[in-house]
Amino acid sequence: MIDKNNPLSLYHQLKQILLNKIEAGEWKVRDKLPSEAELCEQYEVSRITARRALAELEHEGVIERKSGKGTFVKFSGINQELFRFYSFTDEVKRRGFTPSSAVLAMETITPEEEVRLALKLNEEDKVYLIKRLRMANNEKIVVDRSYLPCKLFAGLDQFDFGQVSLYETLKGHYHIAPNIAEEVIDAILIHKEEADLLEIKKNSPGLLIKRITYFNELPIEFNYRVVNRDKYKYKVILK
Amino acid sequence: MIDKNNPLSLYHQLKQILLNKIEAGEWKVRDKLPSEAELCEQYEVSRITARRALAELEHEGVIERKSGKGTFVKFSGINQELFRFYSFTDEVKRRGFTPSSAVLAMETITPEEEVRLALKLNEEDKVYLIKRLRMANNEKIVVDRSYLPCKLFAGLDQFDFGQVSLYETLKGHYHIAPNIAEEVIDAILIHKEEADLLEIKKNSPGLLIKRITYFNELPIEFNYRVVNRDKYKYKVILK
Repeated sequence: MIDKNNPLSLYHQLKQILLNKIEAGEWKVRDKLPSEAELCEQYEVSRITARRALAELEHEGVIERKSGKGTFVKFSGINQELFRFYSFTDEVKRRGFTPSSAVLAMETITPEEEVRLALKLNEEDKVYLIKRLRMANNEKIVVDRSYLPCKLFAGLDQFDFGQVSLYETLKGHYHIAPNIAEEVIDAILIHKEEADLLEIKKNSPGLLIKRITYFNELPIEFNYRVVNRDKYKYKVILK
Repeated sequence: MIDKNNPLSLYHQLKQILLNKIEAGEWKVRDKLPSEAELCEQYEVSRITARRALAELEHEGVIERKSGKGTFVKFSGINQELFRFYSFTDEVKRRGFTPSSAVLAMETITPEEEVRLALKLNEEDKVYLIKRLRMANNEKIVVDRSYLPCKLFAGLDQFDFGQVSLYETLKGHYHIAPNIAEEVIDAILIHKEEADLLEIKKNSPGLLIKRITYFNELPIEFNYRVVNRDKYKYKVILK
């Protein structure tokens, strides 16, 4: 409930309550939200408070208002469950959203030490760097850098990863199917470049995921992901 | 290797290289590091650069200098593997460090909605809030808030959790052994209060872990942890 003694402003508290309901699945994508008037009554807040909470949720792509029809859940965020190998494309689809990617760079480079060690490469080995902005229902979720050894994937730079899935291409064209991943989850401040791409404020907190992807024992990809924490969270069940 | 064209300063690059070796286990706790002179030669940097990298690692509690003896690894950080139920105390011990806790608060409160829903409580139910600063080898790692239902754990506020383990107490005195946890991993800016406790700068990025702990089907604890990302990272292997 809304607590008038809470240091958080009322509209922020109301926004969080609505977000909690959406994230918990109580309200699903395409479900209709209560009207402004109903929110005012239910949570004992002013019209201005209700309007501001809804406006922020709309701005963040969580809800959409259809004139004459009401307010609907548009995008509920992704709770990535960490219990088996996953790909961004498959996870977004599984939740009923549409994945897409914008390719920001496709280069052949000499990798820095961290990437070289992760991929067990020699100093003279080159890698393809594929930099993508990854989206779900056009919401900007992840700035993603994939590093793959040129010696394993000759000609990889001929594919358009704005159109085709990287992992599907590795499977279909190179017969190397990613099946194991080791991920380290860290927190960072998001730099201007990535913040602009994700359409959030510079120096917002973000999740940084470093993944080494394997085909059995063979390291095939180093992946460096800056994640918009408002839209994508990591969840794990431990027994 | 150190790259003079890299926008990161040389001392920062050298520090990261040394940290990587410590985190990868190439240099273990109590191992001796190369001398300043050796680092200068090996990485082709100036004495000032080597000294600054070592000074920062010393300040962060990673290494210690013993006069006349050299520089040694003191604390390597904790890579928390997410594959089974864990407790902070056990994980710290498993790595050969000494866990300790300072109790910052022990209160009986009416919980906010998020805690109440997680613990499936009624509006009138109270919880114990135990706030602790958790350490490994006296390094400040986590500011930890545990919320436990009073109706399950009457008298819990009689124990001194600066001296005894919470989970061991639940097991030994209440015969309720935590065995399942659901964790959501998020990134935040660390507020002044927690930053001061962790001895880091205000608004540093930190990991925020929200855990619901279960005894079989029964939710017994809501845990809210702000984690010093320099000292504790989360790692998961996905197959």
